Amino acid sequence: MKYQAIAAHLLKSERLRGSLVQIKPDATDFPKKANPMRMSRYFLPVLKETPREAQIVSHRYMLQAGMIKQASAGIYSWLPLGFKVLRKIEDIVHEEQARAGHIAIQMPTIQSADLWRESGRYDAYGDEMLRIKDRGGREMLFTPTAEELVTDIFRAHVTSYKDLPLTLYQIQWKFRDEVRPRFGVMRGREFYMKDGYNFDLTKEDALHAYNRHLVSYLRTYERLGLQAIPMRADSGPIGGDDTHEFLVLAETGESEVFYDSEITDLKFGDREIDYDDKAACQAVLEEFTSRYARTDETHDEALFNEVPETRRKVARGIEVGQIFYFGTKYSDAMGAMVDDGKGGKVPVHMGSHGIGVSRLLGAIIEASHDDKGIIWPEGVTPFHVGILNMRSGDEACDAACEDLYAKFTAAGLEPLYDDRDERAGAKFGTMDMIGLPWRITVGPRGIKNGVVEVTCRRTGEAVEMPAADAIAKIQAIYAAL
Amino acid sequence: MKYQAIAAHLLKSERLRGSLVQIKPDATDFPKKANPMRMSRYFLPVLKETPREAQIVSHRYMLQAGMIKQASAGIYSWLPLGFKVLRKIEDIVHEEQARAGHIAIQMPTIQSADLWRESGRYDAYGDEMLRIKDRGGREMLFTPTAEELVTDIFRAHVTSYKDLPLTLYQIQWKFRDEVRPRFGVMRGREFYMKDGYNFDLTKEDALHAYNRHLVSYLRTYERLGLQAIPMRADSGPIGGDDTHEFLVLAETGESEVFYDSEITDLKFGDREIDYDDKAACQAVLEEFTSRYARTDETHDEALFNEVPETRRKVARGIEVGQIFYFGTKYSDAMGAMVDDGKGGKVPVHMGSHGIGVSRLLGAIIEASHDDKGIIWPEGVTPFHVGILNMRSGDEACDAACEDLYAKFTAAGLEPLYDDRDERAGAKFGTMDMIGLPWRITVGPRGIKNGVVEVTCRRTGEAVEMPAADAIAKIQAIYAAL
Repeated sequence: MKYQAIAAHLLKSERLRGSLVQIKPDATDFPKKANPMRMSRYFLPVLKETPREAQIVSHRYMLQAGMIKQASAGIYSWLPLGFKVLRKIEDIVHEEQARAGHIAIQMPTIQSADLWRESGRYDAYGDEMLRIKDRGGREMLFTPTAEELVTDIFRAHVTSYKDLPLTLYQIQWKFRDEVRPRFGVMRGREFYMKDGYNFDLTKEDALHAYNRHLVSYLRTYERLGLQAIPMRADSGPIGGDDTHEFLVLAETGESEVFYDSEITDLKFGDREIDYDDKAACQAVLEEFTSRYARTDETHDEALFNEVPETRRKVARGIEVGQIFYFGTKYSDAMGAMVDDGKGGKVPVHMGSHGIGVSRLLGAIIEASHDDKGIIWPEGVTPFHVGILNMRSGDEACDAACEDLYAKFTAAGLEPLYDDRDERAGAKFGTMDMIGLPWRITVGPRGIKNGVVEVTCRRTGEAVEMPAADAIAKIQAIYAAL
Repeated sequence: MKYQAIAAHLLKSERLRGSLVQIKPDATDFPKKANPMRMSRYFLPVLKETPREAQIVSHRYMLQAGMIKQASAGIYSWLPLGFKVLRKIEDIVHEEQARAGHIAIQMPTIQSADLWRESGRYDAYGDEMLRIKDRGGREMLFTPTAEELVTDIFRAHVTSYKDLPLTLYQIQWKFRDEVRPRFGVMRGREFYMKDGYNFDLTKEDALHAYNRHLVSYLRTYERLGLQAIPMRADSGPIGGDDTHEFLVLAETGESEVFYDSEITDLKFGDREIDYDDKAACQAVLEEFTSRYARTDETHDEALFNEVPETRRKVARGIEVGQIFYFGTKYSDAMGAMVDDGKGGKVPVHMGSHGIGVSRLLGAIIEASHDDKGIIWPEGVTPFHVGILNMRSGDEACDAACEDLYAKFTAAGLEPLYDDRDERAGAKFGTMDMIGLPWRITVGPRGIKNGVVEVTCRRTGEAVEMPAADAIAKIQAIYAAL
C-alpha cells in the first residue's frame, strides 16, 4: 500500500527531523469519476421500431433509446444508459439531502410483518403490499415504505431531546403490487425511491423539518431541470395533517391540476439558504404554496374561483414527490419517546418525505423531448457531450475525434463517442433519440477548415468553431451548473 | 436555469460576433461531494456494552460503532456510518469495473419464476431461494443471482459477434434464505453484491474476460486495503469449469485454506495494465494462481506436499469474491446465440463474477482492527480524519477546530468533528471504536503553543505540528492513494 509507506515515512521523518516532508497535496489529482464511452464498446440497444406496448412518450423513448427492458409486468431492468441517468439523479438527491443536514442510511427491502403489526398497517395495507413467507414460515414483506422500520431504529437508539432534531433518509428499491402497472417506470411495481423521516421534539420543530424538505425538494427538482409545483395534497392512508405533493406539468400526467398561473413564474434559483433558519424556510414555504395549486383530490371550486379568471389554469401533472407531517401517529403506536428535558417523556413528532427517483426519469422525458427523441437537461444527462464522427476510418476525422474524446475526459467530462462504422444518418438518429444536450460533429470538410460543429439538441442551433473552442464552450456550460 | 441562459447566450453571441464568449471553465468549480460532519448533528449510536449476540469481532464492532442494526434474522439496516463505508466500497468497485471496460446495469430484485424454469434452476435451487407469489398468483422470487435475467437481456438485443465482447454487471441487493444466518453482514440473508456476466464468441475470449475480472478484482481488493488471494474453487451448483475464489486471511474465516507462503508476497500494486492485452492479463493470472492455494473444498494433500515444507501454510480465510467460466450452460439452455461471422449461429461463452460488497465490510474489519475498535484502511474510511476538541466551549479550541473543519472540507476531504460537550475520555473511546485512520486532537495547551496533535490510528504514533502542516500532511496521504 503506497499510502501506508508514505504515512509511515511522514510520521517517522517528522519524529527524526521535526519538519514536514513535502509531498505536494493536490486535490485535483484525486481519481476522477468521469466515464467516457465509445459506442463500439457500449451496450446501447436502440430500437428501430416503435414499441407497441408503450402508451406514453417517456415509456416509448426509454425503450427505444435502450434505457430499460421489461423483466416482468411493472418490473424493469435498467440498461446502461438508463442506469447512468438513474445514478445521476440519485447523486443529486443525495447532495441536496446532505446540504439540508439530512443523514443517509439504508434499510433492507425485506422486512418483518411483526413491525408492521405494531402500527396496524400490516392488515390495513391491502393487496399492494407484497407479502412473503420465508423458509421458516415467518411472515415478511417487501417494503413499500419504511415508517415502521425507521421508527424502530429511532426508538432503539434515541432517548433524549438533546439528540434532536434528526432526519434520516434512504434511497432504496420499493415494491407496490399495482393491479395495473403501466407507463413504464412511471407506474411500475418495483421502483427506486428516496424516503426520508424527521424526528422532532415539537410540532413546531417538525414543521420546520417539513419546510426544510420543501426547500431541498425545490432545489433538487430545479437541478434536474424540472419545475415541480408543490400542491396541497390529500393525506391518504398514511394519515397526516400537512402534506404537499410536487407535480410536474405534463399532458400525460395522471392527475388533473388546478392552479394560479403566477405559480409557474416562481423559481428557487441560485439563492442561498440557511437550512437552520426557521423563518427563512417558512418564507419559502409561503412563497411557493400561498397561491392556489391543487390536484383533483383536494380541488375546491369555490376557492379556485377567487383566482382572477385569466390566471386560472387547468392542466395535468405528474407527481414526483410528496412531503408529510403526521405528528405522533407512529411514535405513539410504537413507543418512540424521548426525555423532554423537563422530566417528562413525550412521543416524537414525525413526518415522511419522498421523491420518486426512478419515476423521475419518466417525468423528465415527458417534460423534455421532441419528435426525434429525448432532450436531457444538462444536470442529468447520461453523457455530457456526444462526438459524432461523420467518416469513421478517415485518418484526420478519427484523430480529431480521439483528441476531443481525450480532452473532454481529462477535463472531467463524459463524452460518448460514436466511433462505429455506420452511415451518418443512423448516427444522427441515435444521438437525437438518446438526447445528449450537446453534440460535436466532426467531418472531413470541417477538419480541412480547422473547425468542428457544435449543436444544441434543444434548439437545433449549430455553430462551427475550432475544436479547442468547442471544448472550452462545453466545459463552461457544465461548470456553470 | 442558469445553464440555459448561458448556453443560449453563448450560441447567440457567437452567431452575432463570431467569437467565443469567455467564461472561464474550471473543473475544480464543479460541486464537491465531500460531506463533512459534526458529531452533534450526526446519528452515531455507539454502544457502551458488548453486544452478546455477536460471535466474531467484525459483527461486534459494527454493532458497537453504530454501523448496523439488525432488522430481522440475517437482515440489517445500515446506519449512517455503515452506509457511508458501503457506498465507498461500491464506488471503488464501480471505478475498477469501468476501468476494465465492464458496463453497469441494474436488474430488479423481484424476478419471474418462468425465466428460472428455462435454465432449470427454479426447481433445483432449493430452500435458499425466497419464493414469492404476487397478487395475481404469479410465481416470483427475490434474486439470489442473475444469470437467467442477464442472459434474457442479452438474447433480446444482441445477435452478432460484432457486438462482442460484452460484460454487463450490477451492484444490487440479493437474498439467500440461509438456514442459520450469522456473523452479522458476513452471512446475512439480504446482502449487497456485485455480479458481472461476460458474453464472448469463443472460449478463448471468455477466458480473457475471466482474466480481466481477476485483474480488476486484485486491484479492487488492494484499493480496499485487503490482500485477497485467488484460490482454486469448487464450481458448486452454478456449474463451471474454471473458477477461483478470492479469500482474505483471517482467524475467523469460514474456510480452512492451504497455501504456499510465497503467495502472500504478491502485490498487484501500481502497475499499469491494458485490459485489452490478452497476454498481459494471462500473465497476471499465472503469476497469482500458479502457486498452491486452495480451500478445504478443493484441497489436494499430495499436491500440497510438493510445496517445500517451510512454505506450507494452513490458515483460515473469508471468501470475498469468486470468478467463474461456465461456457455455454445458460446460452444453450436459453438460446442466447449470435452470428459467428461465418454464416453460423453459436451459443455465447459466458462467465459470472461476484464481489460480496456488504460482506466486505466484515472482512475488512476482521483483517484490520485492534482491541479498541476498527482501523479503516484509507481507501474506505467513512471520514478521512477525525477532529477531536478536548475542550468544547473553549473559545480558542473551538475556533481552531472550526478552522480545521472548514479547511479540510474546502480541500475535498471529509472530516468528522467531535464537537460534543463530552469528556475527553468518551471522545477518544468513540474515535478509536469507529476507526478513522487519522485523528487531529485540539487542546488548550497545544493551541497556546501553536500546535495540534496528529495521531495515526493504526500505530498510535502521535506528532505535534502546526494546524496548517497537519492539513497538508493528511491531504498528502489521501492524494497518494
